[in-house]
Amino acid sequence: MKNERVAYVNGQITPEIEAKISYNDVGFLYGDAVFDTTRTFGGKIFRLDQHLDRLFNSLKYMRLDPLMTKEEMSAVTIDVLERNLPLLKENEDYWVSQRVSRGVRQDLGGVSNPTVVIETFPLPLKQRASLYRDGLELVTPSIRRTSPESQSPRAKVHNYINIIQADLEVKSQNANASALLLDVHGNLCEGNGANIFLVKDGEIFTPHEQYILAGISRQVTIDLAHELGINITEKNLDLYDAYTADEIFVTSTSYCICPVVSVNGSKSVNGDIPGPVTKRLTGAYSGMVGIDIVEQYLAHL
Amino acid sequence: MKNERVAYVNGQITPEIEAKISYNDVGFLYGDAVFDTTRTFGGKIFRLDQHLDRLFNSLKYMRLDPLMTKEEMSAVTIDVLERNLPLLKENEDYWVSQRVSRGVRQDLGGVSNPTVVIETFPLPLKQRASLYRDGLELVTPSIRRTSPESQSPRAKVHNYINIIQADLEVKSQNANASALLLDVHGNLCEGNGANIFLVKDGEIFTPHEQYILAGISRQVTIDLAHELGINITEKNLDLYDAYTADEIFVTSTSYCICPVVSVNGSKSVNGDIPGPVTKRLTGAYSGMVGIDIVEQYLAHL
Amino acid sequence: MKNERVAYVNGQITPEIEAKISYNDVGFLYGDAVFDTTRTFGGKIFRLDQHLDRLFNSLKYMRLDPLMTKEEMSAVTIDVLERNLPLLKENEDYWVSQRVSRGVRQDLGGVSNPTVVIETFPLPLKQRASLYRDGLELVTPSIRRTSPESQSPRAKVHNYINIIQADLEVKSQNANASALLLDVHGNLCEGNGANIFLVKDGEIFTPHEQYILAGISRQVTIDLAHELGINITEKNLDLYDAYTADEIFVTSTSYCICPVVSVNGSKSVNGDIPGPVTKRLTGAYSGMVGIDIVEQYLAHL
Amino acid sequence: MKNERVAYVNGQITPEIEAKISYNDVGFLYGDAVFDTTRTFGGKIFRLDQHLDRLFNSLKYMRLDPLMTKEEMSAVTIDVLERNLPLLKENEDYWVSQRVSRGVRQDLGGVSNPTVVIETFPLPLKQRASLYRDGLELVTPSIRRTSPESQSPRAKVHNYINIIQADLEVKSQNANASALLLDVHGNLCEGNGANIFLVKDGEIFTPHEQYILAGISRQVTIDLAHELGINITEKNLDLYDAYTADEIFVTSTSYCICPVVSVNGSKSVNGDIPGPVTKRLTGAYSGMVGIDIVEQYLAHL
Amino acid sequence: MKNERVAYVNGQITPEIEAKISYNDVGFLYGDAVFDTTRTFGGKIFRLDQHLDRLFNSLKYMRLDPLMTKEEMSAVTIDVLERNLPLLKENEDYWVSQRVSRGVRQDLGGVSNPTVVIETFPLPLKQRASLYRDGLELVTPSIRRTSPESQSPRAKVHNYINIIQADLEVKSQNANASALLLDVHGNLCEGNGANIFLVKDGEIFTPHEQYILAGISRQVTIDLAHELGINITEKNLDLYDAYTADEIFVTSTSYCICPVVSVNGSKSVNGDIPGPVTKRLTGAYSGMVGIDIVEQYLAHL
Amino acid sequence: MKNERVAYVNGQITPEIEAKISYNDVGFLYGDAVFDTTRTFGGKIFRLDQHLDRLFNSLKYMRLDPLMTKEEMSAVTIDVLERNLPLLKENEDYWVSQRVSRGVRQDLGGVSNPTVVIETFPLPLKQRASLYRDGLELVTPSIRRTSPESQSPRAKVHNYINIIQADLEVKSQNANASALLLDVHGNLCEGNGANIFLVKDGEIFTPHEQYILAGISRQVTIDLAHELGINITEKNLDLYDAYTADEIFVTSTSYCICPVVSVNGSKSVNGDIPGPVTKRLTGAYSGMVGIDIVEQYLAHL
Repeated sequence: MKNERVAYVNGQITPEIEAKISYNDVGFLYGDAVFDTTRTFGGKIFRLDQHLDRLFNSLKYMRLDPLMTKEEMSAVTIDVLERNLPLLKENEDYWVSQRVSRGVRQDLGGVSNPTVVIETFPLPLKQRASLYRDGLELVTPSIRRTSPESQSPRAKVHNYINIIQADLEVKSQNANASALLLDVHGNLCEGNGANIFLVKDGEIFTPHEQYILAGISRQVTIDLAHELGINITEKNLDLYDAYTADEIFVTSTSYCICPVVSVNGSKSVNGDIPGPVTKRLTGAYSGMVGIDIVEQYLAHL
Repeated sequence: MKNERVAYVNGQITPEIEAKISYNDVGFLYGDAVFDTTRTFGGKIFRLDQHLDRLFNSLKYMRLDPLMTKEEMSAVTIDVLERNLPLLKENEDYWVSQRVSRGVRQDLGGVSNPTVVIETFPLPLKQRASLYRDGLELVTPSIRRTSPESQSPRAKVHNYINIIQADLEVKSQNANASALLLDVHGNLCEGNGANIFLVKDGEIFTPHEQYILAGISRQVTIDLAHELGINITEKNLDLYDAYTADEIFVTSTSYCICPVVSVNGSKSVNGDIPGPVTKRLTGAYSGMVGIDIVEQYLAHL
Repeated sequence: MKNERVAYVNGQITPEIEAKISYNDVGFLYGDAVFDTTRTFGGKIFRLDQHLDRLFNSLKYMRLDPLMTKEEMSAVTIDVLERNLPLLKENEDYWVSQRVSRGVRQDLGGVSNPTVVIETFPLPLKQRASLYRDGLELVTPSIRRTSPESQSPRAKVHNYINIIQADLEVKSQNANASALLLDVHGNLCEGNGANIFLVKDGEIFTPHEQYILAGISRQVTIDLAHELGINITEKNLDLYDAYTADEIFVTSTSYCICPVVSVNGSKSVNGDIPGPVTKRLTGAYSGMVGIDIVEQYLAHL
Repeated sequence: MKNERVAYVNGQITPEIEAKISYNDVGFLYGDAVFDTTRTFGGKIFRLDQHLDRLFNSLKYMRLDPLMTKEEMSAVTIDVLERNLPLLKENEDYWVSQRVSRGVRQDLGGVSNPTVVIETFPLPLKQRASLYRDGLELVTPSIRRTSPESQSPRAKVHNYINIIQADLEVKSQNANASALLLDVHGNLCEGNGANIFLVKDGEIFTPHEQYILAGISRQVTIDLAHELGINITEKNLDLYDAYTADEIFVTSTSYCICPVVSVNGSKSVNGDIPGPVTKRLTGAYSGMVGIDIVEQYLAHL
Repeated sequence: MKNERVAYVNGQITPEIEAKISYNDVGFLYGDAVFDTTRTFGGKIFRLDQHLDRLFNSLKYMRLDPLMTKEEMSAVTIDVLERNLPLLKENEDYWVSQRVSRGVRQDLGGVSNPTVVIETFPLPLKQRASLYRDGLELVTPSIRRTSPESQSPRAKVHNYINIIQADLEVKSQNANASALLLDVHGNLCEGNGANIFLVKDGEIFTPHEQYILAGISRQVTIDLAHELGINITEKNLDLYDAYTADEIFVTSTSYCICPVVSVNGSKSVNGDIPGPVTKRLTGAYSGMVGIDIVEQYLAHL
Repeated sequence: MKNERVAYVNGQITPEIEAKISYNDVGFLYGDAVFDTTRTFGGKIFRLDQHLDRLFNSLKYMRLDPLMTKEEMSAVTIDVLERNLPLLKENEDYWVSQRVSRGVRQDLGGVSNPTVVIETFPLPLKQRASLYRDGLELVTPSIRRTSPESQSPRAKVHNYINIIQADLEVKSQNANASALLLDVHGNLCEGNGANIFLVKDGEIFTPHEQYILAGISRQVTIDLAHELGINITEKNLDLYDAYTADEIFVTSTSYCICPVVSVNGSKSVNGDIPGPVTKRLTGAYSGMVGIDIVEQYLAHL
């Protein structure tokens, strides 16, 4: 068991390869499960408490009781991570996730106790490295981000088909592009786990948090902008803003801050990637987490 | 293995209890999977071909290739069912399902081959028996059925949180009630896998098929109404129609036809349950499938 | 006339029991009338001027000229109230209302002069007393608060069927619950005359005033929060906010501040009712109006 | 009592002038009441049974029990009408209405028994006579007909502010014009109690019945068109249809069929008023009711 | 003048190269102009009368009087076409258009008489030839077809920015693709002048005509389907329909019928292009217009 | 050429009367062109740089490269203006515009180089003079301002049919009125190039800039309000706000600030036109531009 990743499943720590769940688990049958994901920076876990707070909000939204406290979940998370850290190679890091499904359906109705999985997964540093050199190409698909009238985009749940359809649309035309969904009003919304920021005339703008999952990296970025004395405002944004922006970037747990080169093929920077504001923020981000984000990615080119 | 149900998972037939999938399966992580479900009547499978046709439409919508033909899937389905039939007790029947997920996520990106599960599950005849005596209580929750702008309700996929939230809302106030969702325009839409029909002045009305998953039992009911010479029309319906209807019933694979006693507490029948049109249709349905639907349910009281 | 309440109708002060209007009054035929309502605290009228200002905004919206000045209306209101005060028992108080309809339809077309009614009505202290002990159960009905595109929710008019239908829906499932309507975008809106406030991480949030009637008690509460140094923000809120809030309360002329125990059965407080922020605000409210709001209600248990 | 109209109010037949209701009646306070209205033709009542059927649908929608049967209501209606018929002058006719409010609010909560009013009112033949010579000018206001998501336009209730605001908007610019509201999707909807019909290339089109109150005169017109062999179709219509129509007319209980000369000032007929299809239908309508509708109106010029 | 195309501009026939309009023409300043376009087949003009009827509907919608009758416009159209026919090379044909702007703005307010242009333009047979061999690639952009609430898509006017933006979005990712816009409800709508048809299980479906410009070629195709005994139905269609269709094709004046190979990269045919139903209709179309549509296009490869 | 205005068209300065473009210019065929317009005050051009910045944003939105730099465009603008200034009479001023279309369509596909027009046009001082004495009458039409989902209202483009239809609606009922469009949510939006401001209780409110073209005069007004110490807030506003406002005014390049007397006939001022806040702002505006705006207009009465 030395040389393979382990995971926690319902009280057991087992090799990931043997860590399985029943197909009768409603997390599989209906995606009836919630999760949260942080990452490590140089092997050190990032803001685990904040991520667990958000996990427990998602649980509350789904009326799911994991039968574990935040403290227990934190302890198991650290345990699983520490067992897996030795497997990381140089310049690599992990995603670290907790997942809770409602349980396994029973012949006589109802479900078993919740299924709890705690696991790590290597960050896709190699797959995304070129984005830090060339910038991300964003494309807005025709389908709209699910409305809060139907399901809140703010709860992290195991239902991603809306976003998967968006990516299928976009990648069918350009395998390098990522989807930036609009919401049902036509406003810029979010990509797969990624929040968007526009820079115009030295100020930063990002969508309100209602129609999106307001990421923790998004909040970090807002805080860093404040520290750097850069105005940052939440407001409704649309394609006009995207096409006339001076710089664009996205944030996510794994991206931290990733520069965007174009939206629907319309260039969003005039000069080098990243633009000056993006660069300052990325630098501040790297300082805060203690590793050079961009260098870590570029090292995988 | 004699006395336990088996299931097919990725080429193997194994006891259901041992039939598991990785938590890294995207069917679990994202609900990125499709399925279809028919049932048996007295042990005989119902319209398997039509259900497989619909499964392959769902697969096409999700751009998923199961790496099996319809014929292969049909054969495995029959095989699994036949192995499990001896376990059925008197007056019981099975749900019979095929499920295809996009596969297991890989460390270096992408996914494995699709995961295919074929399985049976006992119908909840006991849990629902009283509905055939007392009628179903429908309640319209405040959340709206996911719009086709975001995800088509017509593809049967493993993303049910919209409907789960609807049921949580409704059952929080009345544990016996079932959710009847409205669509984003406020029209009557569908419940959890159930289509709605209103009877008014001897004619039957049911919603258009765009905002709902147009069930095969729904089509059976439409065909039976034609055979019985009862006018039946697809049209937009709303709460006014529900509150002023003479009779209401729902259809689904498992319900076949189930009478409704009220919508939001407003009685939908004046006299006995079921009303006369519902009764005629239920009789015709029973004749077609070769068992008395209502008696099968009531036998479990 | 000593022992019965009086009211003002079109220039006359008469016993309430004899105070009638024609069924041809368009206030009856079409609800074509506006009103405003304040209350007394220990017999003293509360912010009459502000309520009359709002009444005159509603009149302007409806293009209705009451043929009385604000000053005249204020004087009559005080007169009616003073005549009725002796009828109040201990721990009781009044609602105090002005109502103006467009008049009585005439055989030859058009209407008579406006009908003006000024009246008092005992507050439902007994009916609502348990809410201050147990908290209010809010349920979101499926129907949506009327959109300003059709009729402004900010004008207080005699058209309440939208809200009545909401209450009928909700009370059909739970006679103790009150309706909290969503607006046409799925945002938390308002109940019958009641504004909603959420507390999360020590801050207070309440919907923008466009889709709701921004109550005077709502403004009082905002002012009190400022005085107490508690952050309070108007923003779009939805069910995710309601399900993940730390505390919830509603405000209205009669409620002042009433604690909420659950939204759609999802508990909105972890400990005692009311939560700490609600308690501080209620205390400040009581201080301002000069009677203990909660004690007055609880005295009627 | 010979020379004055009488009305029925809660079991009593009294002179209209003395027929009053409490201002505490919720029909006044909230417009919480339903009604239906037919008319006489030459003193003979028109389709009373159909109107009572619709009244009882509205009652069911509002969950109101009038504590009278349809038969009792029919009998009282005939009685009131017969007492008032002698007061009609030549070429005059009556509107005949039943009204049911939820009752009078009580000090201790709840309401009294329902209030029932049955009454007649002279048709506005003189006020509208010129429309049959010159055609009706329709104008679409900016506000939208209340959506069924908020309140069904198909229940005849005492809440008319949406339509009153529409008329105030329109008449502020042109005192002779009438409002034709659009629904929330921008489709042609209805005016104050009036349904719209467009004629194009010899066929007739009228909006679906969901967003409108589908009048009985509307149904009469559809039936007459069928009898005359003119194609008539329910479909979504918008301003493009109105501006390019060959003829336009409206129907209502009082109008029967009234020709429209323009929509938003855009002429809807090329030649004389009424156009040929409108004329044929009006003739057939007159034949059916036994008086010449147009002549009755024109006699009042 | 022998060897150059001519056009009619405001009463003059001049060489196209000299046929100019003022930049103060509101057709330029605001796109305040209407037009219609038919084509020739082998030099013979197609359904000119129907196109002029539609032009006059567009004029009526825009309240524009061209100061010419349909007959005059028809005569000038024939005249211009006949002068230009000798310039057509083998296998070529013309678009033939009438255009009417509101006129030229004047210093003192208002505009001059309308500007009328009648002109021909060579069909883009060479640019589109490969589509008849390979099929058209349709992509749904994120922006939505302008709603009739704002401007009717059924009037052919000189305002195309909505559709131009759609094409810019789509071609930024795939230069060979064409935009298929969705309407504001997420339904399949139309491309640049092109109507869409889906074939499923031997039946044909096409969107309702309200949100689209219902082309004359669309009507031709509907009529041909009827003649061939193929069921064809107007209904709301969305991406689910597109992804699960058996065949897809578009129609327009220039395309007549053009096969579609994919929507958002999802193949819409299993075998050869065109599918069997598309082929039958294309054959019937060719028979009706007297030239082989496909051969004419393919000749330009 | 002394006595006639000149304009720049594609590199040439010619008399306006001879300054023409091809009817094949896509600026004419599709309104596929952008522009911006400033004005002179006493012959001096106003904020040309800001207007050119906005022009270049519009160009970026439309993916149009004018093949001229901002500096070149500025120089030509000044040149054209200077040539035309001598033609101005006393108390007159010019609109000054740059226009860029995508070019002229070519027989073989694609377009020529962009068409650039730079021109001046006399302000309609005489036509509008009475508005500064009597106030502007605003009327809200039934059609809605085009949604950013379809086309951004923030890019100044040659597509005005949405606004032209609004004006046709409004002026059909009242030739003196101007259209104030609502957006698709029913909020107050903008008129033809004019932004709206409401004054209530000493504060100013104006719509958010997303659904409107946020004019430079709008920004000037916001800045002036700040300088004068008057609170000014961007927020969603609707008809309730318009009907209950103390004062209303509009701003535009030509209007600067123009007082509004009524919205849909509902008076928006109690006393004299303009109200006190409007008057202060107009005075400050005049001070800033160096001429008395109101006197200039009134001089033309």
